[in-house]
Amino acid sequence: MTVLDQIADAIGTDRILTGVDAAPYGKDWTGAYTSTPMAVLRPANTAEVAAILKIAHATKTPIVPASGRTGLTGATLAEGALMLSVERLNEITEINVAGRTATVGAGVILSNLHDVAEEHGLIFPLTLGARGSAMIGGLLSTNAGGSNVVRYGSTRGLCLGLEVVMADGRIMNLMSALHKDNSGLDLRNLIIGAEGTLGIITAAVLKLKPKPQAYATAMVAVPSLPDALDLLHRLQDETGGGVEAFEYMPRSYIDKHMQLFPDVTGPFEAIYDINVMIEVAATRAKDARPQDDGSLPVVSALEETLGAMLENGTVLDAVIAQNDNQRSEIWKRREDAGEVAFFGGVFVNTDVAVPLDKVEAFEKALTPRIKAIDPEAEEVIVAHLGDGNIHHTSYITRNDPGVIDAMTEAVEDVVQELGGSFSAEHGIGVSKLETMKRRKDPVALDAMRAIKAALDPNNILNPGKVIPTA
Amino acid sequence: MTVLDQIADAIGTDRILTGVDAAPYGKDWTGAYTSTPMAVLRPANTAEVAAILKIAHATKTPIVPASGRTGLTGATLAEGALMLSVERLNEITEINVAGRTATVGAGVILSNLHDVAEEHGLIFPLTLGARGSAMIGGLLSTNAGGSNVVRYGSTRGLCLGLEVVMADGRIMNLMSALHKDNSGLDLRNLIIGAEGTLGIITAAVLKLKPKPQAYATAMVAVPSLPDALDLLHRLQDETGGGVEAFEYMPRSYIDKHMQLFPDVTGPFEAIYDINVMIEVAATRAKDARPQDDGSLPVVSALEETLGAMLENGTVLDAVIAQNDNQRSEIWKRREDAGEVAFFGGVFVNTDVAVPLDKVEAFEKALTPRIKAIDPEAEEVIVAHLGDGNIHHTSYITRNDPGVIDAMTEAVEDVVQELGGSFSAEHGIGVSKLETMKRRKDPVALDAMRAIKAALDPNNILNPGKVIPTA
Repeated sequence: MTVLDQIADAIGTDRILTGVDAAPYGKDWTGAYTSTPMAVLRPANTAEVAAILKIAHATKTPIVPASGRTGLTGATLAEGALMLSVERLNEITEINVAGRTATVGAGVILSNLHDVAEEHGLIFPLTLGARGSAMIGGLLSTNAGGSNVVRYGSTRGLCLGLEVVMADGRIMNLMSALHKDNSGLDLRNLIIGAEGTLGIITAAVLKLKPKPQAYATAMVAVPSLPDALDLLHRLQDETGGGVEAFEYMPRSYIDKHMQLFPDVTGPFEAIYDINVMIEVAATRAKDARPQDDGSLPVVSALEETLGAMLENGTVLDAVIAQNDNQRSEIWKRREDAGEVAFFGGVFVNTDVAVPLDKVEAFEKALTPRIKAIDPEAEEVIVAHLGDGNIHHTSYITRNDPGVIDAMTEAVEDVVQELGGSFSAEHGIGVSKLETMKRRKDPVALDAMRAIKAALDPNNILNPGKVIPTA
Repeated sequence: MTVLDQIADAIGTDRILTGVDAAPYGKDWTGAYTSTPMAVLRPANTAEVAAILKIAHATKTPIVPASGRTGLTGATLAEGALMLSVERLNEITEINVAGRTATVGAGVILSNLHDVAEEHGLIFPLTLGARGSAMIGGLLSTNAGGSNVVRYGSTRGLCLGLEVVMADGRIMNLMSALHKDNSGLDLRNLIIGAEGTLGIITAAVLKLKPKPQAYATAMVAVPSLPDALDLLHRLQDETGGGVEAFEYMPRSYIDKHMQLFPDVTGPFEAIYDINVMIEVAATRAKDARPQDDGSLPVVSALEETLGAMLENGTVLDAVIAQNDNQRSEIWKRREDAGEVAFFGGVFVNTDVAVPLDKVEAFEKALTPRIKAIDPEAEEVIVAHLGDGNIHHTSYITRNDPGVIDAMTEAVEDVVQELGGSFSAEHGIGVSKLETMKRRKDPVALDAMRAIKAALDPNNILNPGKVIPTA
């Protein structure tokens, strides 16, 4: 009996897509990574995931878990493999308002969780451009970041409990809703960010946060990146850590964005080199209570800080959103980053982190090296400045693997010189396997290989991803 | 050549203690766990730790890492084993004020790091009663908690980078100072909390936080635990999450404390059943700027909240510290918890976590079960109420292993019924091995065993701790 016959026996044929039905799953959001899975499996519950893995384990059949397929590193490439989509595990089982937790299936779409949490006066604070497609399983498996990490941390910091189907089909129940739990090795954080190589996440307990009662959102132009950091620190001090987003968009990004979306006007009448999107939340009830003149304290705090810096020249220009439409417009410019990066043509896209105060040094060191490789290369940067996380894209004139490799290595060199990481928030997938091999501590790589072999001895879970061969 | 001769050859005899010199290391703070190590090794740097582990690995000699030996679970018991004390790795290598990080050796004493951070206007926010002896290596290895977790998280959340010597003596360099790093499996969090079973931590990069510019500290009596939780939520809302400590001390604890320290007066003139210690920090600069009448906004916020609740009867009594002495006195009562728990006699001490709103249910369900086992047993509780973390001690009348086991199981039963954890912040060591075997998910236990075998194939690192045999 073939593997697919065994699986059909176990969970029914209606769970299995092949041929043209499976074809769309061979593509991801980027369009850059395509594959032809043997079949796509869509189990309806954890028991079915377990049944599939038991068969895959016994037959040594590769399994690639997938959810929204919005990742940027090719982690769901499934050439000839079984793709296991968790899309049907899409139930929000519980919103615990008192405990501020959500219990969810791995197939829940991020924006659906946003909506349901809001109905209860709470938020799930993780957000990113792909939130209408990205699912909890993939967000956890890649430890996704996004624009609110400066305030709430990455996905890992928002997860309390996990249910995981291990390589042999056994179900590991770590579905705790506790904030403190020191009962042995930290398997939860090991599975989070493992990109499906150690087990398949089927459900999770997530933290919810109180919904800020008001926001102040602005676009600001500053003369230099140190001025931007000074602004960040002043705002954190004045608001007690209330900065929710602090996003750097240099002129290169604004230009490319306007080229891609010609109907959108620029953030300011003038054109500036250094633009920052800022969002501050009213974290104290008091800061959201209108004052006598109708103004909100959270907005006044932002205005006062910007006003003082405008006066001494450390802020050049500022626009504060006056309504929800203006706020959405400011956010949209930032959230189009995916479209901007994958604009077309030949490009080298990176996702690196450096210490907060080294973003300027990164730019200065990198540009001449990029130009030395391809004098006509065009650079675009967008960065989560509050985290030191830079997305740098080089649009190059020749589709030459040698040039692409040289550009990638140039970025890695600068990152390494500055004590940074070559993968800040997107993960490894297949796109950074070579980089892992070159740059990651060799003892750490061996530890990863040993753990992988121990937990998935038949190497069936997303094989060939994340951990380079020795 | 004996193992000790090989080690002496590699790092010198002056690093090795034996006989009477080694004897004090056979005891820990509790006095409940004693052992006779073969020898105590005190390497002066990471290279010496690596040299020791190479020899231990080759000769299959058990190694027990130790630092301040203030743990409560017997994790440093080293009968016949080599004890490796990291006490000489006590250098604070760097305080990066701009990046708000500290780079430290594993032997740095917690209170020393507190002092040095304060000199730079920053804090390392982890704090606990044993801070004058506990060292960073042990705090990381046990993922220690303490009284500020409600605000800053456990030790895991305060660590950015690690240096670890693996079982075979190779050095794993994860010394990142980055806030975002998705470069492969999360080995850092796996090593943290592993109690020295997967590798020996030799150095770390830790997060520092801005020093709050003022505190408001109080003892409060409330009629019920739901009122206490209501007070917590009100204060969090009013201060934007500024609650740094929220510690529950029922009458049983106050009584026992006064019995142990007869010179100390009670927190109030009257005697109350439910007492809570509260500390709120001024997180915004504004909240620490004296108002026209000289009062501090952070103190006024606490006074106003308590005042409103006194009026409607949901707070019974309150004393706010007027100076540093009064603040220290309030803190000392809480920090004597270790002495109170290990008061002497026969006792069963536990460290459990339940959801925040289940602390009352825990007390109500447990007492009759304790009394059924030993009608004369005396119960004392002290709890990090803001984390749902309860330390419950039963002082019993007979040193009978059967009674002790029954009490332990009674606590575990109640915890399990309430969806809690049998180990919140102290870890497993040897004292909770049986509990791990009984209560932890069996698939998780097998995963831990597989990881342990993969990273320490000769089982030399703190063998027999944390992970029960199958």
